[in-house]
Amino acid sequence: MKTAISERLQLLREQLKREHLAAFIFPSTDPHQSEIVPYHWASREWITGFDGSAGTAVVTMNSAALWTDSRYFLAAAEQLSGTEFQLMKMGLPETPSITEWLAHELHELDGPEIGIDGMVESSVEAETLIAEMREHGGITVRTNFDPLQQIWNDRPEIPLNPIMLHPLKYAGEDTISKLRRIRQALREKHADGILVCALDDIAWTLNLRGSDIPCNPLFVSYLLISSTTATLFVDSRKLSPEVEAYLQTAHIDVAPYEKVKEGLAHYFEYNILIDPSEVNYTLSKAIKCQAVVRETSPIPALKAIKNSTEIAGFRQAMKRDGIAMVKFLRWLRPAVEAGGQTEITVSDRLEQFRAEQALYKGVSFPTISAYEAHGAIVHYEPTTATDIPLKPCGFILIDSGAQYLDGTTDITRTIPLGPITDEQRHIYTLVLKAHIQLELCKFPDGTSGTRIDAVARQPLWREGLNFMHGTGHGVGSYLCVHEGPHQVRQEYKPAPLHAGMTITDEPGIYLAGKFGVRIENTLIVEDYQTTAMGHFLQMDSLTLCPIDLSAADLSLLTPEERSWLNSYHQYVYDELAPELNTDERAWLREATKAVK
Amino acid sequence: MKTAISERLQLLREQLKREHLAAFIFPSTDPHQSEIVPYHWASREWITGFDGSAGTAVVTMNSAALWTDSRYFLAAAEQLSGTEFQLMKMGLPETPSITEWLAHELHELDGPEIGIDGMVESSVEAETLIAEMREHGGITVRTNFDPLQQIWNDRPEIPLNPIMLHPLKYAGEDTISKLRRIRQALREKHADGILVCALDDIAWTLNLRGSDIPCNPLFVSYLLISSTTATLFVDSRKLSPEVEAYLQTAHIDVAPYEKVKEGLAHYFEYNILIDPSEVNYTLSKAIKCQAVVRETSPIPALKAIKNSTEIAGFRQAMKRDGIAMVKFLRWLRPAVEAGGQTEITVSDRLEQFRAEQALYKGVSFPTISAYEAHGAIVHYEPTTATDIPLKPCGFILIDSGAQYLDGTTDITRTIPLGPITDEQRHIYTLVLKAHIQLELCKFPDGTSGTRIDAVARQPLWREGLNFMHGTGHGVGSYLCVHEGPHQVRQEYKPAPLHAGMTITDEPGIYLAGKFGVRIENTLIVEDYQTTAMGHFLQMDSLTLCPIDLSAADLSLLTPEERSWLNSYHQYVYDELAPELNTDERAWLREATKAVK
Repeated sequence: MKTAISERLQLLREQLKREHLAAFIFPSTDPHQSEIVPYHWASREWITGFDGSAGTAVVTMNSAALWTDSRYFLAAAEQLSGTEFQLMKMGLPETPSITEWLAHELHELDGPEIGIDGMVESSVEAETLIAEMREHGGITVRTNFDPLQQIWNDRPEIPLNPIMLHPLKYAGEDTISKLRRIRQALREKHADGILVCALDDIAWTLNLRGSDIPCNPLFVSYLLISSTTATLFVDSRKLSPEVEAYLQTAHIDVAPYEKVKEGLAHYFEYNILIDPSEVNYTLSKAIKCQAVVRETSPIPALKAIKNSTEIAGFRQAMKRDGIAMVKFLRWLRPAVEAGGQTEITVSDRLEQFRAEQALYKGVSFPTISAYEAHGAIVHYEPTTATDIPLKPCGFILIDSGAQYLDGTTDITRTIPLGPITDEQRHIYTLVLKAHIQLELCKFPDGTSGTRIDAVARQPLWREGLNFMHGTGHGVGSYLCVHEGPHQVRQEYKPAPLHAGMTITDEPGIYLAGKFGVRIENTLIVEDYQTTAMGHFLQMDSLTLCPIDLSAADLSLLTPEERSWLNSYHQYVYDELAPELNTDERAWLREATKAVK
Repeated sequence: MKTAISERLQLLREQLKREHLAAFIFPSTDPHQSEIVPYHWASREWITGFDGSAGTAVVTMNSAALWTDSRYFLAAAEQLSGTEFQLMKMGLPETPSITEWLAHELHELDGPEIGIDGMVESSVEAETLIAEMREHGGITVRTNFDPLQQIWNDRPEIPLNPIMLHPLKYAGEDTISKLRRIRQALREKHADGILVCALDDIAWTLNLRGSDIPCNPLFVSYLLISSTTATLFVDSRKLSPEVEAYLQTAHIDVAPYEKVKEGLAHYFEYNILIDPSEVNYTLSKAIKCQAVVRETSPIPALKAIKNSTEIAGFRQAMKRDGIAMVKFLRWLRPAVEAGGQTEITVSDRLEQFRAEQALYKGVSFPTISAYEAHGAIVHYEPTTATDIPLKPCGFILIDSGAQYLDGTTDITRTIPLGPITDEQRHIYTLVLKAHIQLELCKFPDGTSGTRIDAVARQPLWREGLNFMHGTGHGVGSYLCVHEGPHQVRQEYKPAPLHAGMTITDEPGIYLAGKFGVRIENTLIVEDYQTTAMGHFLQMDSLTLCPIDLSAADLSLLTPEERSWLNSYHQYVYDELAPELNTDERAWLREATKAVK
């Protein structure tokens, strides 16, 4: 791999030289700002060898660097080692920004030009970059060149997987109604059309699903909605006669995927909304309309609030997911004691238990199965190169989830495989307290997740501990496991929380070289009470799976925290027990027994 | 008063007619964006009769309205009753914005022009207004007219009170050093000068104090700092020979107050920083320089972090303030039982106890002495018209503070004057829990107050309760009792918290028509611990005064909350007891005794 990277860099630099470009920037996304991209667009991974979901590579004629966030510091260091790429740890005070670094690297050149592919940069990112580069020593940015077209020989095609209907019994609202609500929301923003690039927004709007992207049931396409028409830009080979007929009934026109640029050229009578953080730079510049309304797309906020059919689906999916988790947890410790298990074998076993469940469509993200020190690598995913045998001691952190036709799951459990250290017990208990504090949190309707994040972190901050990832994110309904616009996190995100939203609760603590602990349930935001002082919300766990208390120091829990645990465990037992055999039920009874 | 308001409105409308203005807007501030204004600038109060600190009046040819926030809903309704002014409750969904209301009121006019006085509107407010008015039906805004100049006959002059030195033993840092740090911060913002309009920033920078504004030891002036010079625009009659000599030594030039506009006209070689939320619109337009840097002024963030001399001063001032409070609390209940006391008499008695203390310079804001239902009016201030006798039952809420040469205090206690209802006990306990939760809060250095606000509110939200004011604000060092830039509040304020900042902790609950509860200490942010995961901060109460626990349901407190109360009360006793006589000490012993 290291040789391959070196050869690729050489080929790239020949391209750059030919085009008189001093550097090129590779983001980790695609024309749709996807978090996971079809391999056709995995340019950053191809050029660096780093396969994490987030990162930006920059290559100049004689230097190369990769910026990524704290989740990937350890993984990226490992994967980049031996290559020319220097790791830039985002968020650390000493780390230069890409602009600062480039300005320094290119400071001897006279009016240098650098390149980006405007199709794979969001409008706002490209514009910020162009402005910053201009300020930092007058560097100009070319946006219409993809150097890999010439040199990535075995580059995979854009996927052609078939598109499937997502029936009303799971979606709960038909496309005509969704389009009506979208158009209403557009009018409130003084727009009468929108270009939708986000694949999950397209799938949600049209009640269609695909399989172009690993783990995410999406299909590559664009959707252009005007006040009277809707056009899906998609490769027609992906459409079955059934889907074609469905689109016709829903009054959705179809046009070729690659014609989107031309398709954008004749909307002169419309005000088209372009969400600059969603629409790629090239398309945002290609649109010809009366006025471009640069605003947040209204679709994520509509999609985020699940309807009653979707919530019921979630509860069913969570029950099946919980059964798979219970079978797995009951199997795990004896299997590890018997020997021969590794991070990958137990991850595969969990996947098998899930695959036995009805409506299962695959994992919702690559399983994090991380033993002891690997657990401190926040987004560790075992490979044959890193896989290690499991011993009957210490912690394994398993963050996993599945796609079911009726819902998407996301759960983390940190499981003691035998004796654990006092430090592990202490940290586990603090993370558990943090988890429970968010479960117990009540707040006024419309509160931003930024405002309640500290409620979860308080038990950790009190002991000088912290974690650098978000505390919670929305989860799609048979869609992406990461869904906006709301989040619970340290960075300011104004998106308000409302009843019907899913949100994960996943605090963690990571001690590099030692172990990591994370405890995650997926919750649903629901009504709590309305008083003279406002409408208040609460959260309820959708996830149904015991939390291991043998690893906890129960004396550190408040009576309220213990009471939450007991009632959660009773609920898990009541929901799952009827679906289990006698032995499994006995195991679950023990795993959910009340604590004093 | 009602007749006076009606006559004033008539005179105003004659002025507006003459100037072809369809409406005029009166904010509640002065050319320095002061929270409390010298009466010379109390235009909004003069035209409406409403004397609250926040509110905007708008008068058209046949309508008049006053916008104010929830703190003043009840007070404003009372004071406006019988006048032509309609009360507009800010923050309620049904309340139109000023722009919306004006657009509606003036919709029949052809291209109407409205007026504001650009000297008493901040640059950002005026610009927003001008832009919004243009959008709402093409209303234009004239900014250079003060209609009250003609019609406010007995308008008071701008105060000419003498300016005093604020010696180094209280200030802790000399002006030369402060100017050096300001200039350094300006360079980081690519500016080499700043126009300072905020009177507390001027007083802090120059280590001078005044008495032009009730409760705030400030003097009316502007300060223009360049990279090499500093000019104080001030009426020279305010300067004693001692102060003149001091200014000369500190290399501060002096120019007449009213010459500031001309003074701004010759800085062509400088980039002058103008904080658009601090500098008034007229002056922001008058400056002639190389480039205007529109940025946040660096001075509030420098001023907010108290140096060790200031912190030591605060602790001394708080001790004297605590002695006054203890003497007052010991006196209060027997006095009320003896009869004849009212909200005003007890407020006066408290002021007397404070006035007996060394270095006392007056109250830091008008005392809120609010019995029972009055306590629900957040910023209630008793007047002879509203004053009521106190009975030996229910709650009196007293929010008060003083200016001492070595520090400014701000404290609220809600005191049971005899039997209270179960509801009062319950609410009191929840507010106490909210207060203690913020006292106990730990957080990473640089956390914004917005992120920890919910920690205090959580015990209230759990019961469907909330309050609409901020949870905490900075407190000046013998300066304004409200000081930025940091705050703890629901609205997003990015200003980071750092060690050395003062911050109040003042949750409350207000049941209209019944009672209000607020419990407030002033805290200091200080270092907590540094770990591998960051530098963490904690808060420590500067305020030294027992919290009445006879009104609390102790069974609702957690062990941690009880433990905080016990250690706080022990600290209060240890600090104050040596300064008290035997009887007072016995009273304090009882008031601070540990709870189980």
